[in-house]
Amino acid sequence: MACALTMLLLASVRPPAPDAAERDALPRWGTGSLMLVVEREAGSVLVFDASRHELLGRVRGLGNLTHATIKFSKDGRYAYVLGREAFVSKIDLYTLGVVRQVKAGAWSIGGAMTADGRHIVLSNYAPGEVRFLSADTLETVRVIAAERTLPDGSVKRSRVAGLVDAPGNLVVFALMDADGVWVVDAGKPDFPVVRKHWDVGVEPYDALITPEGRYYLVGFLKSNWMGLLDLWHPEAMRRILADARGAGADEVPLWKVPHLKGWALAGDLAFLPALKREVALVYDARAWTARDVVPLNGTALYTVVRPDRRQVWADLVGKNGDLIDVIDVETRRVIRTLRPGPGATHPQFTPKGEAAYVSLMDGGKVVVYDTATLEVIREFPAERPSGIFSSDRAHKFGM
Amino acid sequence: MACALTMLLLASVRPPAPDAAERDALPRWGTGSLMLVVEREAGSVLVFDASRHELLGRVRGLGNLTHATIKFSKDGRYAYVLGREAFVSKIDLYTLGVVRQVKAGAWSIGGAMTADGRHIVLSNYAPGEVRFLSADTLETVRVIAAERTLPDGSVKRSRVAGLVDAPGNLVVFALMDADGVWVVDAGKPDFPVVRKHWDVGVEPYDALITPEGRYYLVGFLKSNWMGLLDLWHPEAMRRILADARGAGADEVPLWKVPHLKGWALAGDLAFLPALKREVALVYDARAWTARDVVPLNGTALYTVVRPDRRQVWADLVGKNGDLIDVIDVETRRVIRTLRPGPGATHPQFTPKGEAAYVSLMDGGKVVVYDTATLEVIREFPAERPSGIFSSDRAHKFGM
Repeated sequence: MACALTMLLLASVRPPAPDAAERDALPRWGTGSLMLVVEREAGSVLVFDASRHELLGRVRGLGNLTHATIKFSKDGRYAYVLGREAFVSKIDLYTLGVVRQVKAGAWSIGGAMTADGRHIVLSNYAPGEVRFLSADTLETVRVIAAERTLPDGSVKRSRVAGLVDAPGNLVVFALMDADGVWVVDAGKPDFPVVRKHWDVGVEPYDALITPEGRYYLVGFLKSNWMGLLDLWHPEAMRRILADARGAGADEVPLWKVPHLKGWALAGDLAFLPALKREVALVYDARAWTARDVVPLNGTALYTVVRPDRRQVWADLVGKNGDLIDVIDVETRRVIRTLRPGPGATHPQFTPKGEAAYVSLMDGGKVVVYDTATLEVIREFPAERPSGIFSSDRAHKFGM
Repeated sequence: MACALTMLLLASVRPPAPDAAERDALPRWGTGSLMLVVEREAGSVLVFDASRHELLGRVRGLGNLTHATIKFSKDGRYAYVLGREAFVSKIDLYTLGVVRQVKAGAWSIGGAMTADGRHIVLSNYAPGEVRFLSADTLETVRVIAAERTLPDGSVKRSRVAGLVDAPGNLVVFALMDADGVWVVDAGKPDFPVVRKHWDVGVEPYDALITPEGRYYLVGFLKSNWMGLLDLWHPEAMRRILADARGAGADEVPLWKVPHLKGWALAGDLAFLPALKREVALVYDARAWTARDVVPLNGTALYTVVRPDRRQVWADLVGKNGDLIDVIDVETRRVIRTLRPGPGATHPQFTPKGEAAYVSLMDGGKVVVYDTATLEVIREFPAERPSGIFSSDRAHKFGM
């Protein structure tokens, strides 16, 4: 009986065929393979359909985007732009309109979408906290103060950095001023902190999670190693990539890079930009031991792996900042140097990697490469473009 | 000047804010995380929004779906249902209407979407051919006859099987009756066959491509090994997984499974269903050597890895066909046996793996599991449901 009733309901859920007016009102595009490009100073975002390299429009009024990130709803319909001043804007990718906007703190450094798609999470520098917003309404549903009780009984508040989502609806982040790594279970109604690691290194500043969501790696500004949390065995963290070179030397340790998410994991290998050195560092991504060095034409900011894992693109900063070095993963050498133009940065591949978008921050353009020919196939004017976010990030941990 | 003009155009592409009527005409859902479930005999497909586990509707009139597969457009807007009689239906996922439908052969066994998103490719048994359709119009744009010239000068036509898309806009497939593996460059206007391997094994019947798109593995009905084509070095194929057990023995060689795509690649390991044996076979996915055997409660049809690679779900056929064994990847043993119901098959995970959809072919239901608790959280009536296809396959090679 219940079944028969459901079958009747089922018959009725099929929407009627749209009439001409309704068809005209449907979005002209799908949202599966969009590229959103941040225009920093303008506080706007350009939206491209990367399935046909077409500019769909510009969304303005998004606040200070000098350190912005973009997250996507699980169903791919909405983008959430998180700005430096904790301004969160929810964009309907069907209409390119801002449907909700809130200020969720004073100073934010990043964020994540929980794996269940129910919450946008902000990692705030000020106040030092992790803030969960309803992905639907953007209302704050939980604030977790990032703080540590010191031996003298006082409580120290901390900036939050390196926040990622992880399988099992977890959220992992670092307490920058309290040398901690915390894990929150965002699947429980009260968002409990289920694990707190302390003194894992001094001043954690950024982190990444490996593509399958198992390993959380955190970098420290004042310790000469990285912290590794295996989420299958989260009882303890361990030190990896310890490197004597940085200790007490002038040279900055290699992992002090601005964005750990700019690491490339290509199967068994990890490619890292080396700060102040003109190389990419290659590590064994199982044992986390050093393996190789790839000479570059300058200092890399991001190293980004093509989805087929055959190439890593390294964008250079400072000297030769208009270049991108293309590394062949198998031979681990630069096989081609691209010259996109001034301030070339943040290469982002389409989901299957047949094209790449690159921002020319000082060249006022977004350029699109065919990755088979390594030729530019499209150019679009843009106002100091920087970060580029592909909408298939909706389906990737920590992205 | 060109730039200024483009900027003007840019300003104009921002769509005006929709009025209330237009908003009502927008789809209620996004297409990023849909689940499409094939109803075999009914010739219909159920469409679920897996981001909130909601049934959106049923699409009817899709022909014989007793061996059907579904592909997705790059932008996520359209699904292409390929039926046994080479009936191809293009579904608009905004309206759930069939927007185009063609018959593209007599008997089809599968297909692919090219990496550039421009063509749907059919692997046809009859006539023996690979057929490229425009993904836009479904018009045939190229037919490649699958045939081999024999020593006596005669030409033998062959069924086509194991067709996948690969990076670089390639399409790879096997000639079942001619013992060949061919590679087509679908990025070139005339779709040239760029490589032909002959006599790689006898009667190739199905294949898979590894997730990064590098390795093509083909199974043979009458040879006791598998063929491996490394697409980074496609000059030669090699034999792997040779197994003495099957040679001349009653026991069917292990790789004679109906669907090689039902293999699970979990990092360094591959989990394979073993036909007629009540185990899953574990292989080293780098050297392609045997490593382990996981006892199951019956014979597996599909082994499917959870996106976090921590579990492999094996659906059983025949004895205990109502069960699914959940294998822990790390310890390689069954840690839980689920009892979804009669004819449980084809588990399909949501993109981040927090839920799984399972068809009960003989139970008339689709059930949804929470993969954290391993409990059923939703049930939907369905008419002999079978294959389940998540729309994030749009972004995966060979899927």
